[in-house]
Amino acid sequence: MTSTPSSPVDFVRAAVDSEIAEFTERRRAQLLEIGPELKPVMEALEAMLAGGKRLRPAFCYWGWRGAGGGDIPEIYPAAASLEFLQACALIHDDVIDNSDTRRGLPATHKRLEELHGRSGWSGSAAGFGQGSAILIGDLCLAWSDEMYQGSGLPLEALRAGREPFDAMRTEVMAGQYLDMLEQVRGSESVEASLRVMHYKAAKYTIERPLHIGAALAGRYPELAGVYSAYGTALGVAFQLRDDLLGVFGDPEETGKPAGDDLREGKRTLLVAETLERAAADDAAEFRRHLGDPDLTPETVDRMRALATGCGALEACERRIDGYVAQATRALESPLIADEARSALADLIVAATARKH
Amino acid sequence: MTSTPSSPVDFVRAAVDSEIAEFTERRRAQLLEIGPELKPVMEALEAMLAGGKRLRPAFCYWGWRGAGGGDIPEIYPAAASLEFLQACALIHDDVIDNSDTRRGLPATHKRLEELHGRSGWSGSAAGFGQGSAILIGDLCLAWSDEMYQGSGLPLEALRAGREPFDAMRTEVMAGQYLDMLEQVRGSESVEASLRVMHYKAAKYTIERPLHIGAALAGRYPELAGVYSAYGTALGVAFQLRDDLLGVFGDPEETGKPAGDDLREGKRTLLVAETLERAAADDAAEFRRHLGDPDLTPETVDRMRALATGCGALEACERRIDGYVAQATRALESPLIADEARSALADLIVAATARKH
Repeated sequence: MTSTPSSPVDFVRAAVDSEIAEFTERRRAQLLEIGPELKPVMEALEAMLAGGKRLRPAFCYWGWRGAGGGDIPEIYPAAASLEFLQACALIHDDVIDNSDTRRGLPATHKRLEELHGRSGWSGSAAGFGQGSAILIGDLCLAWSDEMYQGSGLPLEALRAGREPFDAMRTEVMAGQYLDMLEQVRGSESVEASLRVMHYKAAKYTIERPLHIGAALAGRYPELAGVYSAYGTALGVAFQLRDDLLGVFGDPEETGKPAGDDLREGKRTLLVAETLERAAADDAAEFRRHLGDPDLTPETVDRMRALATGCGALEACERRIDGYVAQATRALESPLIADEARSALADLIVAATARKH
Repeated sequence: MTSTPSSPVDFVRAAVDSEIAEFTERRRAQLLEIGPELKPVMEALEAMLAGGKRLRPAFCYWGWRGAGGGDIPEIYPAAASLEFLQACALIHDDVIDNSDTRRGLPATHKRLEELHGRSGWSGSAAGFGQGSAILIGDLCLAWSDEMYQGSGLPLEALRAGREPFDAMRTEVMAGQYLDMLEQVRGSESVEASLRVMHYKAAKYTIERPLHIGAALAGRYPELAGVYSAYGTALGVAFQLRDDLLGVFGDPEETGKPAGDDLREGKRTLLVAETLERAAADDAAEFRRHLGDPDLTPETVDRMRALATGCGALEACERRIDGYVAQATRALESPLIADEARSALADLIVAATARKH
């Protein structure tokens, strides 16, 4: 998602970026003191952290503001800490899915695999890449809570924030496992797809960051409900939009080859809806192509036509509209501080707009 | 390491075990609420946590007592949290090393691989096992600091403990990377082997747990030096003993097939000393067999004879003796509270004794 200069994501981006840079710089010094050979570890980690939309920090920040928190410097490192968790999730996800690229660049394990190849080391380059990526993800996960605890917010506030912070970590990892499980089970149900989306994306990307913001401001009990209503609806809408972009999106904007999610066989709601709505022959054809790593552009076009023709795309769009309406209604709550309400409304548009 | 009933490890074991059980029970409920299919995740995690010597919690506890901390209930969950970090390290290590067993039982990724096979799911069973193990390790890592922060110790004490706690996590992951790197570089130097041991084992197993205990008791600045002197010396001695057991140990006690470290090609100090001390022909023979997964018992015996004959075993034993003497001298410091001094002395014996 790109943003206009005045967007609520841009509002936090510069401060979040500089907190990440400063924290990373200290960790770089610490690692290089242990051994100069750790430089490639740091470089891979920095490359991963340089990208990203800062969406979770933005929701954390606006969740804090919506709960009456002020624009103080200490909220930024606390919010930025979520980017390290996200870096861990992406790095490990790419190992698990065996994905070669991330945002158009080599995935972390590919970077280290290439280092192994270039260096003429012994053993398996792929194994070295994967092992390194596991450890780099672990570092990111450890550094996430290190940055959170070290943000400088009062210890009591940090303690209050731990409840949603901890729940979020468990939920995203459980969601990833369920996602993997649905893939190997070949699950095709709309319900299974929605459950994975709920834990892996909706709660993790939006609801929990908002909860953390509210808890840090000491208002988790009052705001949990309204932020959940807004966050889970918007979270699912955001993921649905992302899934549609994975199939219909412009490679220049997604950073992935066109139709890549179809090649990977990702079990999205669009897939579930297509298999449910298409005529038996069409569904069988779609199912046969799904997950074929060698899909031609023509077949990708054919699959798109099937998803569109049977009404699956339209069903997903209607669902997005429904969730957007839910999220919008949730914002009417008088519990949310005014200065945050319009930012949270803008975030709905930014997270779900058709064109990016 | 086994312990007599009155050992300083046994002193903490029951309380540490019950803290782990209680914490795990709550997490089990949380996971099963997300999805009943997460049961195997919990079972794998519980199996991993059921084993283990509780060595790190013991050093954390006695570090706390040595710094004047009392025998209060809140120190136990803080100390027990280190077992979750260790569970993460072992689970991920087994994926990285592709080790099928851990303590004589299937490694975590093998458990989940078997679940995949039994269930007749699609896709790669090995891939599913590895992916699951990555996520289960991540859960353990997140739960480690969750348990630490939730121990009930005063927030200021927990903040003080974060410095060594955070340093420890970075060090152990950096140490694992360096270990992997030395393997693929085919490093044979005594120095490289000692550096890996320093970060991956000595600091992580003994020095940092002691530091955390001292910091929680508010006495990190005074005690850091003496605990480092004791901890790094004993930590290296402990790892050397472990390495010798990996080659010369009784499979019944190590839980690994005899000579398994030789089959894995583990670059230990014993290996470095052997390659450095043996005659050229013998060193070449040893090097040729090292890392051969199909080593016969006869060849294992031959390699043992080579390591013994050239004086490498004796050199390692002398080194252990030297480190034990250093650790013992460090305990003379009047900074260490009397009630902990004899426990820390017993821990030297427990961690480095030849026969277990």
